[in-house]
Amino acid sequence: MHNIPVGVLGASGYAGRELCELVARHPKMSLAFATANEQRGQRATFGGDEVVFKAMADAPLETAELVFCALPHGASAEWVTKARDAGARVVDLSQDLRPGTGPAGIPYGLPELGRTELSGANVVANPGCYPTAILLALAPLIVAGKIPVGASVAVAAASGVTGAGYSPKPELLYAEVAENFRAYSVGNEHRHLAEVRAVVTSLGGDLDVLFTPHLLPVARGILATITVPVTEEISQPAALWRSHFRGEHFIRVVDSPPALRDVVRTNSALIHVSTAHGMRQPTLIVLCAIDNLVKGAAGQAIQNANIMLGIEESLGLTA
Amino acid sequence: MHNIPVGVLGASGYAGRELCELVARHPKMSLAFATANEQRGQRATFGGDEVVFKAMADAPLETAELVFCALPHGASAEWVTKARDAGARVVDLSQDLRPGTGPAGIPYGLPELGRTELSGANVVANPGCYPTAILLALAPLIVAGKIPVGASVAVAAASGVTGAGYSPKPELLYAEVAENFRAYSVGNEHRHLAEVRAVVTSLGGDLDVLFTPHLLPVARGILATITVPVTEEISQPAALWRSHFRGEHFIRVVDSPPALRDVVRTNSALIHVSTAHGMRQPTLIVLCAIDNLVKGAAGQAIQNANIMLGIEESLGLTA
Amino acid sequence: MHNIPVGVLGASGYAGRELCELVARHPKMSLAFATANEQRGQRATFGGDEVVFKAMADAPLETAELVFCALPHGASAEWVTKARDAGARVVDLSQDLRPGTGPAGIPYGLPELGRTELSGANVVANPGCYPTAILLALAPLIVAGKIPVGASVAVAAASGVTGAGYSPKPELLYAEVAENFRAYSVGNEHRHLAEVRAVVTSLGGDLDVLFTPHLLPVARGILATITVPVTEEISQPAALWRSHFRGEHFIRVVDSPPALRDVVRTNSALIHVSTAHGMRQPTLIVLCAIDNLVKGAAGQAIQNANIMLGIEESLGLTA
Amino acid sequence: MHNIPVGVLGASGYAGRELCELVARHPKMSLAFATANEQRGQRATFGGDEVVFKAMADAPLETAELVFCALPHGASAEWVTKARDAGARVVDLSQDLRPGTGPAGIPYGLPELGRTELSGANVVANPGCYPTAILLALAPLIVAGKIPVGASVAVAAASGVTGAGYSPKPELLYAEVAENFRAYSVGNEHRHLAEVRAVVTSLGGDLDVLFTPHLLPVARGILATITVPVTEEISQPAALWRSHFRGEHFIRVVDSPPALRDVVRTNSALIHVSTAHGMRQPTLIVLCAIDNLVKGAAGQAIQNANIMLGIEESLGLTA
Repeated sequence: MHNIPVGVLGASGYAGRELCELVARHPKMSLAFATANEQRGQRATFGGDEVVFKAMADAPLETAELVFCALPHGASAEWVTKARDAGARVVDLSQDLRPGTGPAGIPYGLPELGRTELSGANVVANPGCYPTAILLALAPLIVAGKIPVGASVAVAAASGVTGAGYSPKPELLYAEVAENFRAYSVGNEHRHLAEVRAVVTSLGGDLDVLFTPHLLPVARGILATITVPVTEEISQPAALWRSHFRGEHFIRVVDSPPALRDVVRTNSALIHVSTAHGMRQPTLIVLCAIDNLVKGAAGQAIQNANIMLGIEESLGLTA
Repeated sequence: MHNIPVGVLGASGYAGRELCELVARHPKMSLAFATANEQRGQRATFGGDEVVFKAMADAPLETAELVFCALPHGASAEWVTKARDAGARVVDLSQDLRPGTGPAGIPYGLPELGRTELSGANVVANPGCYPTAILLALAPLIVAGKIPVGASVAVAAASGVTGAGYSPKPELLYAEVAENFRAYSVGNEHRHLAEVRAVVTSLGGDLDVLFTPHLLPVARGILATITVPVTEEISQPAALWRSHFRGEHFIRVVDSPPALRDVVRTNSALIHVSTAHGMRQPTLIVLCAIDNLVKGAAGQAIQNANIMLGIEESLGLTA
Repeated sequence: MHNIPVGVLGASGYAGRELCELVARHPKMSLAFATANEQRGQRATFGGDEVVFKAMADAPLETAELVFCALPHGASAEWVTKARDAGARVVDLSQDLRPGTGPAGIPYGLPELGRTELSGANVVANPGCYPTAILLALAPLIVAGKIPVGASVAVAAASGVTGAGYSPKPELLYAEVAENFRAYSVGNEHRHLAEVRAVVTSLGGDLDVLFTPHLLPVARGILATITVPVTEEISQPAALWRSHFRGEHFIRVVDSPPALRDVVRTNSALIHVSTAHGMRQPTLIVLCAIDNLVKGAAGQAIQNANIMLGIEESLGLTA
Repeated sequence: MHNIPVGVLGASGYAGRELCELVARHPKMSLAFATANEQRGQRATFGGDEVVFKAMADAPLETAELVFCALPHGASAEWVTKARDAGARVVDLSQDLRPGTGPAGIPYGLPELGRTELSGANVVANPGCYPTAILLALAPLIVAGKIPVGASVAVAAASGVTGAGYSPKPELLYAEVAENFRAYSVGNEHRHLAEVRAVVTSLGGDLDVLFTPHLLPVARGILATITVPVTEEISQPAALWRSHFRGEHFIRVVDSPPALRDVVRTNSALIHVSTAHGMRQPTLIVLCAIDNLVKGAAGQAIQNANIMLGIEESLGLTA
C-alpha cells in the first residue's frame, strides 16, 4: 500500500503544527512539504520526521495528492484554487469557504451531520472550532423538530488560548491569561455566528443563537454550555442524542458533565444533556466538549480527508 | 477612637483566612481571636500580627464586639446564637440564615440592594458568592420591570477553585484542575438557587433562573454571563445600571467586558451590559465579575459590618 | 502471537493509572486486572477498555504473567513476593527493593545504565523519578572518570505535582500550587538520595550529591539542573553523552536546553550539556528532562517489562 | 505636607505599570506624568487615578521632582541625564548604570547592602531582579569571610514570566509557558552576571558564581536556590543572616523554605539557610524568594526613592 503525499500550507500556527503532527503519524499519509512564510528555512520535527519549512511561493503543490490549507482567513481561497489546479484534493481550514461566508456548493466537513457530499469531494470546508461544538450539540434537537420556532438558544462557550492562534498579541501572554477569564465578542459579534446560523438553517432549524465566547486560561479545549427551550418536556433527553449519533466513532453521549481533560488530544466530542429543573418553559442544558485543535480543526480535517479519499474514517486519529 | 475587637469563627478555610487578613488590616478593627478546630494551637500571621488558632469550644465570644461566622453550612446557626448571647454583633457567612433557606427576618447583607435593615442590625446574613454576582447583575432590570413575566434567564457562571473551599478533595488537586474546565450541578441543582430565587422575588421579579456553574482553573474570581430577555429593545442599556447604582463605591458599570483580573483582591463588582444582535426576542447580555473571596464573601462581610457599626462603609476595603 | 495478561496493583494513583493506560494500549499486553482498595468496585476506562477495580485481597494474581506493583513505599515488598509465588514476573515501582534501601541482588531497572541483569529477570526494581533524571545525566561522566574524587555535585531539580501522588493533601490543592514555587526536603533530606548514592557508587563514582527538589506548578515533568566539577576542561562535552548513549532509543542529547514540553507524555529523556564560563574550577552544567510519570515511573516500568519478557524494548512507548 | 510629583518613563512594561501603581498609592507621592511611546494618548488607571500616557518626546520632565526611568537597557542612560538636567532626582531601573556595566560612581540601590551613598543621592541605579535575590542571599556569608577563596557558588534561580517584560514574543504566550519549565542562558551567559560579580567583589568576595536561570509558569516571583561551600561547619547558620539583617524591614530569615506566594505583591525578601547533610565539603543551601516586580524592580525603586528623599524607607510599600 502506498503512502499518500500530503502538503500543509500554513504550518506555523497551532492548527498547522497539529496537522503536520497528525499527518506524520498517520499510517497512510506522509508529509511531503509544509509552508511557513516567516519560518521558511527552519527545521521542525513531526512524529520523529524532520521537515524544513518552505516559503508559500515555493510550495511544490504538484507533489501532493492532498493539501491542507491552514492559512489565515482571507488568504486561503486563492491557495485552495492553486492546489486544486495542481491536482490535489484540498481540505480548507479557513473560514473562506464555509457556509455563511463562502460560496455556495462547497461541502461542509462536519461528518457527523452528513457524509454523502464529502465522500469523493475534491474540496471540503473544515468547520470552525466553536461551530463544531455548537452544531454537534444542537443538531439532534433541530432535526427532531423539538425547538420552538423562533426560540432563543443561549450558547456560553469557553475556549483555550490556542483558539486565538499562534500570534504574539500582548493579551495572549502568559502573565495576561493565567488566573484570568473573560468574555469577548459579546453581543453576538463573533465571526463564527454566520457559519452556525447557515448550518442551523440547512438542518431545518428556525431559531436565534446568542453566542458568548470566553477565553480560558488553558492551552486547549472548548466547552459549550447551551440553554435551549424545547417544545415539551423530554423524559430521557440523552436518548435523542444517543439515537442520532448511533455508530459514530467520535461522539460520546456521557452521563456526567464532560471536562476538557476528557477530550484534549483526541478527536472526540463529548455531549451531556440534562433537563433544567424548576422552569416554566421546558428547557434542556446541552454541554459539548472538544479539543479545539483536534475535533475543532486538525483532527476533523484528517477525518474529512480520510472520507474524501475512501480511507477508514478514524485512521490516524484518537477517540 | 478605639479599635473594635473582632472574632472569626472558622478561620482555616479560604473565606475565614481572608476575613482574618481584612480584619487585621482594617483601621478600626483588631483580631481578638480566631478559631480553627483542626488547626488549634497553630500560629498564623495576618497583616503582620500573629494569631494562635483556638478550638471552637474555647472561643472567648465575650471578648468580641463583632463576630464573623465562617463555619460550614449547617454548623453555623448555632454559633450565631451563642455569639449573640455573648453580646456580639454577628455577620454569618454560611447559607444557614439566608433567604430561601434560613428563617424569615434576618437582614440580607447585599448592601447595594438595600441598606436600611443592615444599619444597626445585630445579625446579618452574608450572601453567597454566586448570588452576589447574579443579583447585582439582574437587580436594576428587575426593579425597572423590564423582564417579561415568566421569562427564562440563563446564567452561565464560572468560579475559581477557592469557591469550593479549602477541602482536600481529589478533584481540587492541582493536577486535576489545571488545564481543565467543566460544569457542575448542571440542571439547576446548585444550592445557591434558592437564595437567588428568594431575592429575585423580594425585588418584585417573576422569572425563572437557569443557573449552570463551572469550575475554572484559577484560584479566585467569578464571572457570571447572563442572558436575559427584555420587554423591549433598550437603546442604551448600560444607563439603567449606571443610574441604579449611582454613588455606589464598589459597583462599576464598564464599557469593556470585565476580566477576573480587574476585580481579584478587590471588593468591586464590575458589570457590563450589551444588546444581543440578531435576536427576534429583545435580549441583553449582562456580565458581572467579582472576587468570590472578597465581594463574594469576606470583603462583603466587612462591608456589612461597617454598615452595622456605623463606620464608613468602604473602610478597610479596596475598590 | 498471544497477548500477555497483566495485573496492576495500586491502580488509583497517578503512576498506577498511567500504567493501566500504557498496558491497555500496548500491542502485546492486555489488562487482566487492576486493584485500588479505596475505589474497589468502581469502573475506569483505559485505552477504550473498561476495568472494574478490585480490592487488593481479591487480586487474581495467578491470572497474570506480569504484575506491576505500584503500591506505597513499605507496602510493596510483600505483594511482590505474593505475585512471584503466583508465578508472575514483577516490576516493582516502590522504593522497597531499590539500591540503597532494598535488599541486595534485585536488578535495578534503569536500562540505559545496563540491561544484562534485566533480560529474563523475575523481579525488577523500577527507579525513582528523580534518580532516573539525575543518574542519566551523570552516568557518562562518572563512567569516564571525569569527576574529581570527593567532588560536590549540586542538583537543583523541579517536579510537577503528580510526583507527589494522587493524595488529597491541602498543599497540593490547585489554589496552593498555582502561581507558586518552592523547594522542599532542603539540606539533603529527600528519600531518593540513598538510591542515587548507591547507584553512583556502583558506577564507580566517589562524589557527594547535594539534591534540592522543588515543586513546580505543572502536572507532569521533571527538570534536573546539575552543576558538576570536572577534572579538566572538556572542549565538546556533549560528545561524551552522545557516545555513551549511542543507539539508545529513549535518550536524546540536545543542542538547546530541554523544556518539560519536549518530554511530557513520552518515555524520552532529553539531556543538554554545556561548559560554565568564567569558572576557575572547570565545571559542566548538565540538564535532564523527563516525564516523571512515564520515563520516571510507568513508561520505564513498561520498558523494563519489555526487556524482561524479551519483547522489543520500545514497544508500547512513545519516544 | 506636600506631595512629591513623580514622572515614570516607560510606563507600559510590567515594571513601569507596577511603578505607576505604587506611586499612585504612595502617601507622599503623586503621579505627575507617565510615558509610553507605543501607547501614547491611551488612558490607564492607577490607584484609582486616571493617567494619559505621553510620548517620550513630550515628557514634561521639569514638572517632576522625582523620575523613575524604566526604559529598555541601552535607551535609559540618555534619559537619566535629561531628567537630571531638568532638576529631578532619578532612579534608573535599567542595566545601564549598574555596577559591572555602567560607569563608576553611581550609587547601587540595594539598601540592605548599604545606604550611605543612597541618602541624598541624585541618581541611583536600581538592581536587577536576579542580582537582588542572589546578593541578599550571599552578602552575609561574603562579609563574614566564610566562603573559601575561589570557591564555586551554584545558583539555580527561577523567575516568573513578567521578568521577561511585556513583550509579545511567541515563547511568552500562555500556550507556550503553561505546564512548561526550562532553563535559559545556560553556561553563565546571563547579562545579570556582570552585576552580581561586581557587587560580590565590592563586598570583598573572591568566588565564582555559576548562574542558571529558569522560566517558571507563574506571572511573578523569583526563587534563588544557592549552593555555597563554606570554610567550616556552621552550627546555626541562619543566625549569621539574622544578625547581618537585624532591623531590616523587608528581610525575613525564615525557618521553612519560602514559597513565591509568601512574597508576591510585597517588597519582602525571604531567606532560608540550611546545612547540606552528608557532604565532605561543608556546604550551605541558601534560598531567597522575592517578587521580581516589587523587591526586584518597582518596589525597590520606591524604597530607594524614599531613602534619597529622606522619607521613611518603607512608606508606600508592603512588607
